[in-house]
Amino acid sequence: MAPVKNGRVIFNEMPTDYPIPGQTTVYDESETIDLENVPLNGGILIKTLVVSIDPYLRRMMIDPKTPSSFPPFSIGQTLINHAVGLVLRSENLAIPKGSHVAGLFPFQEYAVLSGPVSPRVRVVENKENLPWSVFVGVCGMPGQTAHHGWHEYSHSKKGDLVFVTAASGPVGATVVQIAKAEGLRVIASAGSDEKVEFVKSLGADVVFNYKTTKTREVLEKEGLVNIYWDNVGGESLEAALEFAAPKSHFIICGNISGYNTGEPYNVKNLQQLVWREITFHGFLVDSLMPKYREEFLRTFPIRVASGEIKYKEHVVHGLENAGQALLDVMKGGNFGKSVVIVADE
Amino acid sequence: MAPVKNGRVIFNEMPTDYPIPGQTTVYDESETIDLENVPLNGGILIKTLVVSIDPYLRRMMIDPKTPSSFPPFSIGQTLINHAVGLVLRSENLAIPKGSHVAGLFPFQEYAVLSGPVSPRVRVVENKENLPWSVFVGVCGMPGQTAHHGWHEYSHSKKGDLVFVTAASGPVGATVVQIAKAEGLRVIASAGSDEKVEFVKSLGADVVFNYKTTKTREVLEKEGLVNIYWDNVGGESLEAALEFAAPKSHFIICGNISGYNTGEPYNVKNLQQLVWREITFHGFLVDSLMPKYREEFLRTFPIRVASGEIKYKEHVVHGLENAGQALLDVMKGGNFGKSVVIVADE
Repeated sequence: MAPVKNGRVIFNEMPTDYPIPGQTTVYDESETIDLENVPLNGGILIKTLVVSIDPYLRRMMIDPKTPSSFPPFSIGQTLINHAVGLVLRSENLAIPKGSHVAGLFPFQEYAVLSGPVSPRVRVVENKENLPWSVFVGVCGMPGQTAHHGWHEYSHSKKGDLVFVTAASGPVGATVVQIAKAEGLRVIASAGSDEKVEFVKSLGADVVFNYKTTKTREVLEKEGLVNIYWDNVGGESLEAALEFAAPKSHFIICGNISGYNTGEPYNVKNLQQLVWREITFHGFLVDSLMPKYREEFLRTFPIRVASGEIKYKEHVVHGLENAGQALLDVMKGGNFGKSVVIVADE
Repeated sequence: MAPVKNGRVIFNEMPTDYPIPGQTTVYDESETIDLENVPLNGGILIKTLVVSIDPYLRRMMIDPKTPSSFPPFSIGQTLINHAVGLVLRSENLAIPKGSHVAGLFPFQEYAVLSGPVSPRVRVVENKENLPWSVFVGVCGMPGQTAHHGWHEYSHSKKGDLVFVTAASGPVGATVVQIAKAEGLRVIASAGSDEKVEFVKSLGADVVFNYKTTKTREVLEKEGLVNIYWDNVGGESLEAALEFAAPKSHFIICGNISGYNTGEPYNVKNLQQLVWREITFHGFLVDSLMPKYREEFLRTFPIRVASGEIKYKEHVVHGLENAGQALLDVMKGGNFGKSVVIVADE
């Protein structure tokens, strides 16, 4: 068989503000691949089915000299993120041809993972017959972020008041449902009236559109917050500090309000950390995987398949639209977990 | 015996910026006390020997409606803080006449603590024959703050780099010595060249005057910080975030840079909490006392008496000078633990 086109998305230029499709990232079709003969060197060849679009991809487009727990992209490299692929060929006995794998894969139609495959790549059995995209969403990294972070840091106890930001996103929506399953009262914010309706359908007690209602006015009515799930930083964090209960736990998961703009919103009342004895838990999900991943993978797909845990996806088709999908995620133009369907099986 | 003058310091007016002696606080000599006949109602009569001047007293001079783990002063009330007194009379068998007690006492020459005495008042045996002022300093609340906070939150391990701010103050100086006793490398900042020399004498490896040297320039040279002891907030916190090691622990003990000025310095890089997986531990020492106080009281005075743990005091004589002493503490005009000697025995 002749070589086929192997389209990919390249990191082309460091953005100064929002990532611009065709400038920050470029879709490139110049590469081809000979699917039958490309050497695997003990590895596997995958056909990419779905790649995940997450806010932190923007963070990986920064000056590579910035110290960080995960390394930025280099100019010219193919983007990488959580993805699911179908194994077309395999020289690895543990990952047979025809199986599905989840892991960190390139934004490319086909990819060879040479040599011994990373322990982070896993075969997804999917006995529940869920859409493959779910394994980069509620049953993947964002679901794990919610689940692992909640269990490690919330210190939840009966009667706690919880406040979740970006609650229609895949992490926030899952946090809302975990907290409600524990019987806690949940306040949640989202960025449109439609998103607000969705978060209400997840069971959150008080949901508001932060673009039309001031966070501090909502919190002032609802009482002091024991657990704050922070996906956004900035003004939301400041309001949560103003209405934090003594000894509250702030789970600092993201800071999307500060990723793009040159001038982030500066929180003015950090002194509350002392007076109210607040803990800020900054975390990345990778660090919690050894402790929680196995239990998550065993139980979460079942809860999702049964409808107990709900999710919403924002589906984009074709790698050529990945750049726009990333911009939408940064601007809140998506509604639900953003995924790019690269190919059907 | 005729009643005697019983001078005291009153909270007179809520300050908008620094606390002004004679305006924010007023020394008042209008009260008298009959030492022989004043009724004790089962309590004790003390002669105040020493009262402590601490930065958080300024925090207690805020709008009483502000939610807080400890209640603000009311206008017209006598200031209260950690102090040591000599028991002149007692109707409490556990606290005999002639003993010395430490606790939260009023800024007044004599005070009756009626009825059952608070469990927070304790008889100080002082077998080591230390000056009584030490029991509001290195062997009192500031020493406990350093000791308890370090043991609960530092997660210290071999090879850690520690950064301590306000390191010539009673908390900071004790933290420096605890960290050095564990064999760790310590960077410390202080507000004058004289203070820098003192902190060097405590064994800190790198000490700088933050008024003449930029914190970020020092940290840039020394490597990434694993444990940051924050007494000041603002620019120091921002610099520590810039040079924080992954999974570092920030012990948020005070925010003196933001207590007085209407416009606090706003930290710009909180997003590092996520990327470097930093924990901020905001705390007040009271919460840690049940766990650590007994061991501290048993061991710390011995370490101080032996000279292993050093301390420095800024001694002021007479309650009439307490207001100025507080202003000095807020402006860094003190050098060492600020105490007011109210009377000799």
